[in-house]
Amino acid sequence: MTVATNDPPRIAVQAAIFSVRAGTDRDELMIPLVRRTREPFLDQWALPGGWLGDAEGLETAAGRTLAATTGLAPSWLEQLYTFDNASARVVSVVYWALLRSDLVEAQRAAAGSPENVEWFPVEALPDLAFDHRSIIEYAVWRLRNKAGYSRIAAALLPDEFTLAELRSVYETVLGKRLDPSNFRRLLEGSEALVPTEDFRTGPHRPARIFRYNAEVDFADPGPL
Amino acid sequence: MTVATNDPPRIAVQAAIFSVRAGTDRDELMIPLVRRTREPFLDQWALPGGWLGDAEGLETAAGRTLAATTGLAPSWLEQLYTFDNASARVVSVVYWALLRSDLVEAQRAAAGSPENVEWFPVEALPDLAFDHRSIIEYAVWRLRNKAGYSRIAAALLPDEFTLAELRSVYETVLGKRLDPSNFRRLLEGSEALVPTEDFRTGPHRPARIFRYNAEVDFADPGPL
Repeated sequence: MTVATNDPPRIAVQAAIFSVRAGTDRDELMIPLVRRTREPFLDQWALPGGWLGDAEGLETAAGRTLAATTGLAPSWLEQLYTFDNASARVVSVVYWALLRSDLVEAQRAAAGSPENVEWFPVEALPDLAFDHRSIIEYAVWRLRNKAGYSRIAAALLPDEFTLAELRSVYETVLGKRLDPSNFRRLLEGSEALVPTEDFRTGPHRPARIFRYNAEVDFADPGPL
Repeated sequence: MTVATNDPPRIAVQAAIFSVRAGTDRDELMIPLVRRTREPFLDQWALPGGWLGDAEGLETAAGRTLAATTGLAPSWLEQLYTFDNASARVVSVVYWALLRSDLVEAQRAAAGSPENVEWFPVEALPDLAFDHRSIIEYAVWRLRNKAGYSRIAAALLPDEFTLAELRSVYETVLGKRLDPSNFRRLLEGSEALVPTEDFRTGPHRPARIFRYNAEVDFADPGPL
């Protein structure tokens, strides 16, 4: 990329998109990256994004990036931070987003990933272009921080889930184990959770299926 | 302002700058505004700021705006949010800043305010250009929120202060009264506060003067 020194700074919009994938012994927090087809950092992985269009809103551009990368609309989308790179004359407005894991799986099964897009575990990122590794670390910090005081982690779950599934998502996001009976007690007092009449059956004893009260916002105070 | 429809969006940097002014019966949270000398919103008040310079960093541009508006360096400077205005083809990266009240007073006494700059109480803002009223409301919310879990409000104080002066700053920022003995008890357990051997004398009984432990960051957990 050559830059004329009298060009004004340009605006890029990027997205750190998170979902959760069921692993063999534990779930993993996943993020889609795009392999660059241009210099600089040719062939390296980077956050998906692009230039802000003329007369395009920032959130619209972030939504466009999400759709192009995953084919999905996010269950949560929020501005993360605006980074500068004066030497490259670029200002990057970065959003972070959460996708429901079941929708990600269904979309991948139906359509595959777009060319040059691949999902990576946040704990095992490849080499990244620009300062995208530190941007992802900051986005993970924000997600963890917000999961500590809101019910945001539920934006990664299907509509219906058991308490064990909800706890597993929290554990994946927070990167630590939670005590099952403590977790259950914290949730029993919550208005956000609505029990259904259904149970998940399998090798363990049947577990009641819950759904979230749609009137409680993801950003409202959560179980922790 | 005329805008060619094929111009790429431009980047502006603005600053919501707060200080505290001693009032007759209570202190007031103050913000400097700039009277516009151009259309649109000619003659209306607006947040200080300007276009991001070629090869200029965002925080550098915010610091430049602060210096031009107040002649001072901030004791706290943080990015607030990036707003878009697709119809005006402008993206505004807004910072918020805190200034020590004693430095603001000294600077105003020595040099006056720059032409077209005036300080207003946050509780009594004039009509504002663009969406700057809602930006200021968001900045005040962030300041209040952060004051609730950090010692950020101390960035508005001189180096040395009494507990009553510190409490008054918290009351001004939070917009509510705090119980004096509760406040004192919360602070006595804090490592952030260092007692000096000096006392403030006057009509009331002498009050010990404190200073902050310089090793404790403004963003570290605070007394509330």
